[in-house]
Parts: sequence; structure tokens; C-alpha cells
Amino acid sequence: MYKVGIVGASGYTGGELLRILLIHKEVEVTTATSRQFEGKPIHKVHPHLKKLSDISFTSSFNSDYDIVFTATPHGTSMNVVPDLIKDGLRVIDLSGDFRFEDFKVYEKYYGIEHKAKDLKGIYGLPELYRDEIRDTNLVANPGCFPAGAILGIFPLVKKRLIEEKIIIDSKTGTSGAGVVPSKRTHHPECGEDVIPYNITHHRHMPEIEKELRKFGSAKVHFTPHLVPIIRGILTTIHVFPKKDVDPEDVREIYMRFYERERFVRILECGEIPKLSAVRGSNYIDIGGFSLDENNRLVIFTSIDNLVKGGSGNAVQNMNLMLDIEEDTGLGSIGLHP
Amino acid sequence: MYKVGIVGASGYTGGELLRILLIHKEVEVTTATSRQFEGKPIHKVHPHLKKLSDISFTSSFNSDYDIVFTATPHGTSMNVVPDLIKDGLRVIDLSGDFRFEDFKVYEKYYGIEHKAKDLKGIYGLPELYRDEIRDTNLVANPGCFPAGAILGIFPLVKKRLIEEKIIIDSKTGTSGAGVVPSKRTHHPECGEDVIPYNITHHRHMPEIEKELRKFGSAKVHFTPHLVPIIRGILTTIHVFPKKDVDPEDVREIYMRFYERERFVRILECGEIPKLSAVRGSNYIDIGGFSLDENNRLVIFTSIDNLVKGGSGNAVQNMNLMLDIEEDTGLGSIGLHP
Amino acid sequence: MYKVGIVGASGYTGGELLRILLIHKEVEVTTATSRQFEGKPIHKVHPHLKKLSDISFTSSFNSDYDIVFTATPHGTSMNVVPDLIKDGLRVIDLSGDFRFEDFKVYEKYYGIEHKAKDLKGIYGLPELYRDEIRDTNLVANPGCFPAGAILGIFPLVKKRLIEEKIIIDSKTGTSGAGVVPSKRTHHPECGEDVIPYNITHHRHMPEIEKELRKFGSAKVHFTPHLVPIIRGILTTIHVFPKKDVDPEDVREIYMRFYERERFVRILECGEIPKLSAVRGSNYIDIGGFSLDENNRLVIFTSIDNLVKGGSGNAVQNMNLMLDIEEDTGLGSIGLHP
Amino acid sequence: MYKVGIVGASGYTGGELLRILLIHKEVEVTTATSRQFEGKPIHKVHPHLKKLSDISFTSSFNSDYDIVFTATPHGTSMNVVPDLIKDGLRVIDLSGDFRFEDFKVYEKYYGIEHKAKDLKGIYGLPELYRDEIRDTNLVANPGCFPAGAILGIFPLVKKRLIEEKIIIDSKTGTSGAGVVPSKRTHHPECGEDVIPYNITHHRHMPEIEKELRKFGSAKVHFTPHLVPIIRGILTTIHVFPKKDVDPEDVREIYMRFYERERFVRILECGEIPKLSAVRGSNYIDIGGFSLDENNRLVIFTSIDNLVKGGSGNAVQNMNLMLDIEEDTGLGSIGLHP
Repeated sequence: MYKVGIVGASGYTGGELLRILLIHKEVEVTTATSRQFEGKPIHKVHPHLKKLSDISFTSSFNSDYDIVFTATPHGTSMNVVPDLIKDGLRVIDLSGDFRFEDFKVYEKYYGIEHKAKDLKGIYGLPELYRDEIRDTNLVANPGCFPAGAILGIFPLVKKRLIEEKIIIDSKTGTSGAGVVPSKRTHHPECGEDVIPYNITHHRHMPEIEKELRKFGSAKVHFTPHLVPIIRGILTTIHVFPKKDVDPEDVREIYMRFYERERFVRILECGEIPKLSAVRGSNYIDIGGFSLDENNRLVIFTSIDNLVKGGSGNAVQNMNLMLDIEEDTGLGSIGLHP
Repeated sequence: MYKVGIVGASGYTGGELLRILLIHKEVEVTTATSRQFEGKPIHKVHPHLKKLSDISFTSSFNSDYDIVFTATPHGTSMNVVPDLIKDGLRVIDLSGDFRFEDFKVYEKYYGIEHKAKDLKGIYGLPELYRDEIRDTNLVANPGCFPAGAILGIFPLVKKRLIEEKIIIDSKTGTSGAGVVPSKRTHHPECGEDVIPYNITHHRHMPEIEKELRKFGSAKVHFTPHLVPIIRGILTTIHVFPKKDVDPEDVREIYMRFYERERFVRILECGEIPKLSAVRGSNYIDIGGFSLDENNRLVIFTSIDNLVKGGSGNAVQNMNLMLDIEEDTGLGSIGLHP
Repeated sequence: MYKVGIVGASGYTGGELLRILLIHKEVEVTTATSRQFEGKPIHKVHPHLKKLSDISFTSSFNSDYDIVFTATPHGTSMNVVPDLIKDGLRVIDLSGDFRFEDFKVYEKYYGIEHKAKDLKGIYGLPELYRDEIRDTNLVANPGCFPAGAILGIFPLVKKRLIEEKIIIDSKTGTSGAGVVPSKRTHHPECGEDVIPYNITHHRHMPEIEKELRKFGSAKVHFTPHLVPIIRGILTTIHVFPKKDVDPEDVREIYMRFYERERFVRILECGEIPKLSAVRGSNYIDIGGFSLDENNRLVIFTSIDNLVKGGSGNAVQNMNLMLDIEEDTGLGSIGLHP
Repeated sequence: MYKVGIVGASGYTGGELLRILLIHKEVEVTTATSRQFEGKPIHKVHPHLKKLSDISFTSSFNSDYDIVFTATPHGTSMNVVPDLIKDGLRVIDLSGDFRFEDFKVYEKYYGIEHKAKDLKGIYGLPELYRDEIRDTNLVANPGCFPAGAILGIFPLVKKRLIEEKIIIDSKTGTSGAGVVPSKRTHHPECGEDVIPYNITHHRHMPEIEKELRKFGSAKVHFTPHLVPIIRGILTTIHVFPKKDVDPEDVREIYMRFYERERFVRILECGEIPKLSAVRGSNYIDIGGFSLDENNRLVIFTSIDNLVKGGSGNAVQNMNLMLDIEEDTGLGSIGLHP
């Protein structure tokens, strides 16, 4: 059994890592840290884990791990990860700290100085960077919106089929906001509302854009909306083909790009991905493939923000790094309805 | 007291007309028809109206009304309205049947032959056609999505500030689907999901587009999404200024366009309209006014789909037709939270 | 116009008082205090009030009011109210501070020493204490659960029809928790859950019990549950008739008790009160009136916790105190659906 | 691999059986019937199953199965099951048809004549009837409410600790209503409401009562409430100890009763079971164990109505019948949040 440590395991991302890893047959979680809950059994914070693990949160950490997940906030990861790497550990970081090659963009959008500019992470989207992930000692796991958006647009950019104007209108569940209560996620405020936020300057915009630009030209226009669901991101992608296209041909391009991908499902033209179909699972469903009268092409993707948009994708990266079957531990099927 | 009749009063639109008109101090609802519920007191269908009215549903109808609301489905209104008009009545129709000057567009999008092509309705948006509404005997009350979209875009089109590419990504509550249960609005299917529908060919697309084109050039790209809330439409409008604009100047244009409008509220730049702020009220809140790095301008509007997007706006039209204060009976304040 | 002041106007109760009073034709809100938001226009906190009032929050307070509402937390009201009364003002307090004649019960359940034991409030349920409310200078407005429970049980206790064991299983919306975010009302925690809380020791238990005991014998067993709706309390009352009863006779008793009550609606036997039927309105709907095989009688009541369970009932008290029509300003009809 | 057939596989119960069985390592689903969807791949009805199975719905059925699940409605199962049994097959029926020994009770509550009175099923609660289940060829899988209620009360009845008056106030998600849309589960009707139904005569009342009465005396008072969540039943049990009890001792009794049970988790005194902790999993969490001032004892249980309250429990029964590890295929952990 490989040994796994989780730094910052008391949030939703940490809970989700534990949910997945506790039934992963090739790894064992030996450490889960939380300063706030030190000494408490993990099920006191994560009630779904009762009877499934004996471990308690610790604040200490040793260096005997095959993989370490850092589920710490941005700004914290950059302080924690360098020491882990120095100790020879392999790290999958779930914050935004190591996702940007261009630190100026990071500093502009995150509003803090980057303190570990010598470390370079591999952007952890297996569908794009599988080989690099296998070999690295630092994976920067993607943000939740980018995971749902990049995989839905990338084939069109790479094939140079569309104009560079890309409008991404995302609808996210509230678990993406994390475990700390706030006015925006206070039920009376959000329970019957649709709440756009960071409407023109969300941190995930430059993350999406810089990835797409590696494969073609792209100007990303991104606005996320909070909707009163718990898990899931439905991403609506509005793009404009450069010339006449047949939706079936567009779909065929996706089929080919993703034909070997275990966790990507391509729906029919006109078919809508459901959040329930991916809830709790590591799948991304891609559908829509529809043209309107005025020559707009619409693509939709659905993911569970905590799984393919977070901890599930991180475990997929871990499997690659440990050279075990890529879907190990990720067999959960979407919880529909 | 003016006398009012409602044809088709058992649906949500009918119930909402009754909710508003029962406390309107200058009119009296003397007839509410429903074939299905003939003979039943209206509160057996509309539980909120208990103790507030003694009338029962009828199937018969006389011709002694100052105003008749036809809250009948499209395809039915075109059969009902001509006789009412012939009887000298003034009609506010809430279906799509009389919204289009161009019957070919109607027939293409509604899939039925139009049978009352000699009748011409005034498009019932008071903010655009106040004077024409006062004088007409047939108002075509706007669709719910168009009400929320047109008022949010019209000033930009009229001022020729934006490129013709207009992306409208709307999020609607489930009451817009009406009173008849369906798979899409079955709670287990929609309660934790975001469901795009009629993704490139919704009937409200040509309705929005033909109105905007009266004031400038516009290519409308429209996709509605069902979200698990009951009332409200949040419309996200993505447009592209032709040249550099200052968001404050954009907002100023809206302020001027709507300065005498009782039911339009212009928020600050960067401020987000809340659905709770308009819930149950006839207001439309317009906010956003934000530019992103790639020169997209984002406008948001919020309405209650059953009020400003339906029955409230219809009563506003009635007030104009009866030459009484435009906001009579429409004093309800949004139900926040 | 009567002058009204609101102490503590930035919470949901304050916002709801403002929503009701701004369209009340015989009073004017001249002061709304909030330390936190001093100087801000009220619509910056209560977005539904935009365009409806020019007042801003203040921290100062004069003594020129016909009525003062204290929408302050328990423990604060007891410090604020005595000075107001001393200044000759008439006060409606929405906290729990003046609801108990027996201060020991208060201190046990609220965990704080009572500091204004010389003041005696009238328990502000107009259906029980109308005359006393008219004449008092201090009304203790009921808690939200008690409002929904007492009116649903009181006739049975007074008629001595039932055994003293009364089980009250209440389901409340999240707005009852107030405006301050917490883990329990964090959407990811409550959005798909039913959360019992204070399961055997909620403060509203002794409040319900002491009122019922004024009219007969009663042992109250009360447990509230948070459900993922925003407004409304559905109270399920399980009681046991002392001898055989006919549900129609039971219903008849309620009909007679409440026949002159403007805001109490008695449904048919077997009919279920809907929260939507009372949402935003001051009604309480009472239904159920059903017996099971094992001789349990079930009564249900529905209220809007912020209206009949809070600010609406407070305004009803104000109307009585000012000797104006009891339903003035309370004409809002339930927002169904 | 054991071969499994599912009769009536297009509903939510059928979909959930497939979700569980497709990752069960010792069985293979070889047939899934649906008249309505004959010929369609199962993922066209169950979108979460895309890419996970190649089978399509059939209407035909052979007799080469080790286990057959009949997920047919009550009234249908009694027509289908006898032939299967005659063919020598072993059946797990998920309807109510074989749950009652006393057919008069069945006929009274289900309103139809029973046509297979010679068949006797074992009531499929492994925690009560593990040995009988192993040996039978017909299991009557429990109803969803009974699964959540019986396990929460049974130890108290068996120990004769409580008076016979047992009040069960259940709150259920909407998936329990099945896949067919109805007014009650139409989102605008239920999305912001709490809806009691079959308030004194639900079919699950006699099912709970007859099971409890096998172990002691019990009068069950049961009322279910629909709440706007999709999955989960929170059962609130109000009972009255015959003499003074210490909650810790009560909890200890449950600990002992269920100490070998893989899927029963006993929480601390005062701890509340969360629906998210069991969502998608086969666990039942039991908590509360609290006494109020008036000597009521409150117990809460949480289950996923489609898993422990349906298909998960049915698979647990299958494992027993096939003599394989009881938790095989049931490793899913609750989806929190």
C-alpha cells in the first residue's frame, strides 16, 4: 500500500479526498492534518466517514509519504509545498498557487506576492498533460471552473474552428465556496436566487485563457453564477465557428479527442448533460453541440466541482504519478436522481 | 369600479392576475373562467386566495367588461380573442399569439398556422410603447424572457454602442413552466440541477430580436436555463462595445432612459440584481455594467417571471388602457429574503 | 401620520417591518437604527426597498414616536426598552425578553440574568389578548414557533378536549435563523438536509407551554427542524382526544373560535395548509383535523415566520395600539407558487 | 459471476439497483426489462450509467438468473412474482405486495385484492431477519419509511422500555415519489414547501406497526412530510419511557443491538444524523437519544430512501441469499456535502 498524507483535511476538498481514498485499494491515508480540529477523529468533522476510518486529525507531519495532497488555501500552499518538495516528497496541490507559469498574472489576480517562484508545477489535467503528470513531483490541480471549461473548449481551439471570442457562463453549486459560512452562501440569501460574482475578474478566467492559448488563439469572457444546488458546475460555452460547421462533425471531433479518456463522456447533438449524472463521480459530460440561426455554437459540460473539479481529478493525478490504473478508486457512479 | 374578466384563470398566470387584481382598488374581477374547475371557488385552485374573494370559476362569459385578460395558451388565444374584440372588448393577451408582426416567424417558431392575421396587437412593454398601449384594444403582453432581456439591452442598441452579437444567457425559476407537471420540473429531476432547454431555438429568441431590431442592429443568441428556484429570471447579457466605454457612462445612459419609469431600478456599476429584491413585485432591477479585460460588457437584469414577466406587467398595461395611475395595485415590494 | 421608529433595523425582522410599514398608509418610519450600517441608505442592506424610501440608518434616536419597534436580540432589548418606556414611548419588542412572567423560566432557557424585572409586557397575540394589547405600552411580540403552535392548539386546550401530552414537530425555513451566517444555514450543509436543533430544550417550548397552561393543562413536547426553504413554518401537532371525537366537530370548534379573526383561515378536514398560501402574508392557515386508527388527532398550521411569526404580527399589534383598522398595511396576499 | 435480472428497471429504484450492481464484483446484470423503453440502451433513461454498461432494456425475460429483482409497482408484483417462483427463481420484490402476513391489512391499505396469497415472503430487513433471508426464495424488501423507522424503534420495543404510543414524524425527499411527475412533486408546488400527505392512513403505518408488534406492544402514529430535497428520509421518533431512563443507557442498548451490523451507525447522545452523511450509501445513522423536561425521548434516524430504504437494502438481501459478503457492492460512502 502506498502511503498518503493530506495537509489541510478538514474542508470539503479534504473530506472528498478522504471519501475517495478510504476506498482506494492501493493507498492508505496515514496522516490528515488540521490545526483547528487536532486530535479529533475525522468523522467528527466529516460525518459521512464514521465507521470508515480510525484516524484523527494531527498537526504534525512526517515525511514518509508516497504522495502528499496539499488542500490548503492559496497563499498557504506556497509556504508549505517548497519544504515538502525539498524533503523529496511528491505533491499534488489543490490551491491556485502553482497553476500559473506567469507569476505576474498570478499576483494580479490573487493579490499576493508569490513566494515560491522557483517551483514549477505541472498543470494537472490528465486529458492534456498525462505524460508530464506521471513524471513530475509537483502537480497543480486545476480550479473547478477551468476543469469544466477547458475540456469543453480545447478541441475547438486546437482545431482552430472558432473565433477567438469565447463566452463562458458557468453555474456552480455552493460547495465550491468551501466550508466557511458567508453571506453569499447563507441559505436565506442564496436558496432562491442566482448570484453572479466576480463577474469580470474571477481568478479562473486567466487560468482558462492561458491553457487555451497554448493550443490556439482565445479571448475568454467568463462569468460564474452561484445557483442553489450543492454540487456541480454546468458550464455554458458560447462560441462562433469561423465558417459553416455541421454539429455532427463538431461532436465527432470531441469523440476523437477523447476516445481513450475514461472520464469524458460525449453526449449526442442536442443532448444536455445533467449534473445528477456526474454527481459524486469523476466524469465530465459534454453535450449541446448545437448551432443557432445566428451561427452560435453552444457546448455544455457538467462536472461535480468536488470530484472532477477537485479531489477526484487529484486522485486521478495521483494514480498517474504512482503508475497504477488511472481509474483506481474512482469507480463511483453519478448519483441520479 | 371597472369590471374585469379573466379567460383561463386556473394557471399560475391566472392566479397571479387574481392576486394582484383582488387588492387593486379601481377594478373588480367579475368573471374567472376555467373549464376544468368550473363551479369551484377560486381558492380551491389558488390556496393563497382563501377568504379574499367569493367568486367561483365559470365556463360562461358575458361581454360586460372594461378589460379582458386572456391567460390562455398560444394557439387558443388566437381562437378566443377575435370574438372578444368583435364584441367591442379591450383585451390583454398573455400568450404569444399576437406578439409578432411577421406571422411567418410566429408560424416557424410556434409550429402552428396563425388564424387571426387581421388582428394587430400592440407589444405590451410600457417602457417602450406606453402611448400605443393607452389607445389600443389589443395588447400582446410580452414573454417572460423578453421582458427581462429587452429592457436590459434596448438602451445599448438604440445608442448603437455595441456590436450586433448579443449573447443572452437566462436562468429561470420553474413557475415559468406553468402549472402542468412534467419531467423537466419533476423535483427529483430539477431540484439539484441546472437544465438548459430549447437551447438554440426558444420562441422568445425571435421575440427579443425583432424588438431590438426596431431600434438598431442586433443578432440575438439566446439560451434559457431552468434553475431550482420557483420565481424569478436572472438574465445575463454579454455584449461587446464598438469602442472603449466607461461603465459609469453606460450606467448613465440607462439612468436617463428609465428616469421616469416607476418599475425600473438601475443599480450601481458592479452591483448584482437579486431575485429576492423583485420577488412578487413588478420591478425590474438592472445591474452589472462591468467590463472585462477582453472588452466584454456584462449587464444583468432580475424580474419576477410571473409579475414583470407576466401578470404584473399586464396589469400595468391595463392601468394605462383605463387611464388610471400606472402603478395602481402594483405596490407589492419584493419579498427579501 | 403616526411616527414610527425601529431600533435594530438591519436584520431580516427589521427589513420585514420596513417592507410592511413603507406601504402602510397611516404611519411613517422616521428612524431606523443600525450601528453597523450607520449612514447608509436602507436599500443598501435591504435591496428590495430601493426607490421606496429615502431614509438612511442612524445610530441616534429621539423620542418623538407614536410607536417604537425594538428588533434587537434578546439580552439587548432588556437594556434598551426600559429607557424608551421611561421616556413615555410605547414599545413593541420582538425579542424574547418580555415574553415571560416567570423570570426564572426566562433565565433558565436564555441563560442570562434578566435586568428589567419591573417591566411587564403583554404577550402580543391579538387573537388571545386583543384588549390588553390596545391599552398597553409594552407588547412582547411572540416567537415564530409559538405563533404557529399556540393558535393551532389553544382551542383544544381551552375546550379540554385532549390529553395533556402535546407533541409539536415544527419545520422551519432558514430565514428564522436571522441574517448572520452560520454553519447550520450554510447552503452546502442545509440545502439538501433536514436538521433538528435544540431538540429537547428550545426556548420556544416554555413559551408555548406557559401560554397553553393559562387555558388548560398541557405538557408540551417540542422539536424544531430546519428545512431548505427560506420562509415559512409548518407546524405538525400530534394530540390525543380524551374521548371519541368527530373531526368535523373539532374543525367546527376552530371555526367558532376564530370566526371574527381577519388573519386566521380554517381549512377543510383533511386539507393541508401550504406555506406558499401564506408566504409574505400575515395569515395563519390551520388544517388537518384528521384522526388516525390509533386515535391521534393531527393539526397543521402554516405561517410565514417573518410575518405572522414576526413583523406582520407586530404591525397588527401596532394597529391595535394606535386604534386603527387591525389589518391596515397587512393586505399582502400569499405568494403562491 | 452470478446472473441477475431486473423486472421494471426504468424507474428510480431500477436505476439505483443498476448503479449498485454495475460495480458489484460478483454479479452481472444480464436483463433489465422495461416495456416503455424496450430496445433503448439503459443510459438513455439513466444518464449516470452512460459508458458503464452495454445492455438495453428488453421486454422479454428468460429464467437463467440466480436472483431476480422485481421493481414493479404494487399490484403488478403479485402478478409477476408467482411465475418467477414457479420457475424456480429466487426473487427480491421491492413492492408492498409481499410484506404483509395479514392480507386483510394489505387489502385495506392498498385497496386491491391480493392475488397471490399462497406465497409468503420474508420481510427483508437483514438486521431483524438475516437467517430467514439467507434461506428464502422470496424476499419482501421493506418500504422506505419502515426501513428508517423500524430500526430506530425496535430496540426500545423489544426491551419494553417505552409506552405503546409511538409518534413517527417523517420527512422525505421527493425521489421517494418515483419517476412519474405529479402535482405534489412539481417544483413550483414543492420547492419551497413542506407537504404532509396521507396524514393518518399511509400504507407504511401498518407495515411499521406489525413489525414492531412482533417484539412488544406498539401503537404507531405516523405522518410523512415531503420536503424539498431529493434523497433522504429523516425520521423523528417521539416516544415515552415507562420509567426514568438515562439517555446514555438508551444509547448503550442500541450499541449492543447493532454492534455487529455493518450498516448501522449509532451517534452520540444529542448528535443529529445528517442526510448527507448517508446520501448514496447503505447506512442508517441513529442519533438523538435525548429526553425533554416532560419525559419524552427523541430518536432520529437518517437513511437514503433509495439505498437503505430501497435498492441498497435489496442488494444486501441478495448478498445474503447468494452467501457472499454482506457488504459487497455496498461500499459507497455518503456524499457529504
